[in-house]
Amino acid sequence: MIRNFSISTARIGRDIDALALIIEPDRPFTRRAFTPIFLEGRAWLRQAIQHAGFSSHVDAAGNLIATIPGKRPELGSIMLGSHSDTVPDGGRFDGIAGVIAALEVARTLSDRGIQLDHTLEIVDFLAEEVSIFGVSCVGSRGISGTRPAEWLSRRSDGITLDEGITQVGGNSATDAKRSDIKAFLELHIEQGPVLQDEELEIGVVTAIAGITRLEIIVEGRADHAGTTPMGSRKDALTTAAWIALGVEELATALAAGDAHFAATVGEFVMEPNAANVVPAKVRMLIDARAERRDDMERFVEELQAGIAAISARTGVPVGQPRIVSDNQPTPCDPMLLEVLDAACDSAGATHRRMASGAGHDTAWMARITRSAMIFVPCVDGRSHSPDEFAATEDIALGAAVLLNAVIALDQKLQKEQ
Amino acid sequence: MIRNFSISTARIGRDIDALALIIEPDRPFTRRAFTPIFLEGRAWLRQAIQHAGFSSHVDAAGNLIATIPGKRPELGSIMLGSHSDTVPDGGRFDGIAGVIAALEVARTLSDRGIQLDHTLEIVDFLAEEVSIFGVSCVGSRGISGTRPAEWLSRRSDGITLDEGITQVGGNSATDAKRSDIKAFLELHIEQGPVLQDEELEIGVVTAIAGITRLEIIVEGRADHAGTTPMGSRKDALTTAAWIALGVEELATALAAGDAHFAATVGEFVMEPNAANVVPAKVRMLIDARAERRDDMERFVEELQAGIAAISARTGVPVGQPRIVSDNQPTPCDPMLLEVLDAACDSAGATHRRMASGAGHDTAWMARITRSAMIFVPCVDGRSHSPDEFAATEDIALGAAVLLNAVIALDQKLQKEQ
Repeated sequence: MIRNFSISTARIGRDIDALALIIEPDRPFTRRAFTPIFLEGRAWLRQAIQHAGFSSHVDAAGNLIATIPGKRPELGSIMLGSHSDTVPDGGRFDGIAGVIAALEVARTLSDRGIQLDHTLEIVDFLAEEVSIFGVSCVGSRGISGTRPAEWLSRRSDGITLDEGITQVGGNSATDAKRSDIKAFLELHIEQGPVLQDEELEIGVVTAIAGITRLEIIVEGRADHAGTTPMGSRKDALTTAAWIALGVEELATALAAGDAHFAATVGEFVMEPNAANVVPAKVRMLIDARAERRDDMERFVEELQAGIAAISARTGVPVGQPRIVSDNQPTPCDPMLLEVLDAACDSAGATHRRMASGAGHDTAWMARITRSAMIFVPCVDGRSHSPDEFAATEDIALGAAVLLNAVIALDQKLQKEQ
Repeated sequence: MIRNFSISTARIGRDIDALALIIEPDRPFTRRAFTPIFLEGRAWLRQAIQHAGFSSHVDAAGNLIATIPGKRPELGSIMLGSHSDTVPDGGRFDGIAGVIAALEVARTLSDRGIQLDHTLEIVDFLAEEVSIFGVSCVGSRGISGTRPAEWLSRRSDGITLDEGITQVGGNSATDAKRSDIKAFLELHIEQGPVLQDEELEIGVVTAIAGITRLEIIVEGRADHAGTTPMGSRKDALTTAAWIALGVEELATALAAGDAHFAATVGEFVMEPNAANVVPAKVRMLIDARAERRDDMERFVEELQAGIAAISARTGVPVGQPRIVSDNQPTPCDPMLLEVLDAACDSAGATHRRMASGAGHDTAWMARITRSAMIFVPCVDGRSHSPDEFAATEDIALGAAVLLNAVIALDQKLQKEQ
């Protein structure tokens, strides 16, 4: 089939560059959902969709959707897309690459005069990143019927999330949940170094890792750093240091298995943090990600035992880890994985299966339809940073894989019904 | 001689309680130098001195000094004292105990009709604690001629240190350095747990530890906590954790010798400190205290080697420790130590020799005269905190030791001349 000669690398590069100019004036590549610059980005996207000859609308959940009618609309839709919002200070490609690649698939089909049997939809999900309201995946949670009702009253910049959804053209009073989407595919930059390190072109994502966050409080004692003998201290820092090393050791052991696992002490705050006072307290927040739920359960269990052992040895009290948040892993659809593997092979793209350590809209779409995603390489795994970079050629190859997959799915979904 | 029946425990308790009421309205036991409440405390002290029948003045360095003329003023002075200022939120006894005990020694001599040959001076040093100007031991540095000239232009609360000294009655244009003081003794609470743990009444201080502060910067790399494999990280926190444990191990080994040594990672700040980002940077500040300079040198040397080894093992770059400040240890005067040991025995006070891990005015007085100090126990080693507590009886016994020492010194200094 197609490597990428029918996909327009130039068009993808031009679109990504255009969006890279619609950003906050003082911050690199910043286009946060619900801000005026986000609406400017959306206006540009609507124009690009219109220019390609497609119609678009904003659904009740605030997602911008282009619709390309199929020959047999009663079959339902195949949806492709990602998100156009960014974190502060980062992200020329995170989200954007997937939206533009999806649009390019639709344009290529149109250029070649191919009309699918299924309706094709291109989506820009609202607020995938943690938004000004402190919550993320607002649009994909809306369309999948999983957006908590209490989120709507969250306030920021003088408005509620409810009002923010209205401002982008949605309507939170209307149920946005869809049941007519038969498959969802997302292209995203990897945000990790694996594809680059292994010199591979595509990652076929097997699962979106579950994320569990645990808070640990080490309760030492504030003593005079000069006068308190070494043996008479209850130093919160050194006990916390043992715990941080224990987390790394446990995570490294679990990561040596065949499924993705990572754990990080991302937050670490010490009190009183004064030069001449023995550290009295440390608060640590652990971020753990597991492709398999049983790995996460084993991690939490061994962490508890490890902390108890460390505390007993150092004599410094440590509270048991408190689970701050806990999301299960989301496996991608096995049939879609097969289709994507085949689409890579057809496009001549080298590929591997891998889990996503980061969260994505795909995890929410999986609640209402067959869902899967592909990764394209990004330089040194950098993301959420002005340094984030992905080659246009790699994104174009990813678009070609999506194109092959969509063409295959348009038939395969009918046979399976 | 005297245990403490001629020293008035009641009078000491009453004075400490009186000063404990002259504090900031909203903060426990706070009377910082150069603030209005500090001047109120000084006014109370001047009255107490006057009430005891002594005259007082403020010297050019801003120290409040009571003078009790000797029979042979040509011999010079014996000076006793400490400081009446406190840190924020702490210190009913830190400093105050030494000022009141010194005053009580003078009052007891006066009550018993004893006039020394030497002039006796009771001093309340200005700003021993880190003051609003960010510097400490302002008065004892002034009287010892070691106050850096550039300090005078430091500003806080709209005034310079120069103006602050003027406001307390000093005059920084006049050289405050003294050469007529023949011995200086200070009583202070231990600020550590050793005397309490060993059930001893007096610590005879052999030296004021040198303090060296070292800054260490660990330069990791901010990666996505979910997507970066455990083996591909440059986690600044886990490398910093190894260093913190190394500091503790090194310090514990040095402290096992016969001289005081302690080291503490008192400041520890991590960046970006975000739940889902691998720690990129840690800044640590090590506070090391050594009774013997060669212990400090060994510590710094082994720390450098240890850090290089840790960095090589983890692959995370660590800058070599930067020496932020470096003060030599100050040994106390050997003759005074003998006099103090004997004074303890005469007072029936159990005692041991020990180094001071904390800094004191005594370290500066040692630049111009024979100097030494004694510690009295404080509860659980707590200090610089509202919990700081010392029993009036223990302070009174310390005052009795000072009284014995002063009487002995009044003779002994004449023989040595």
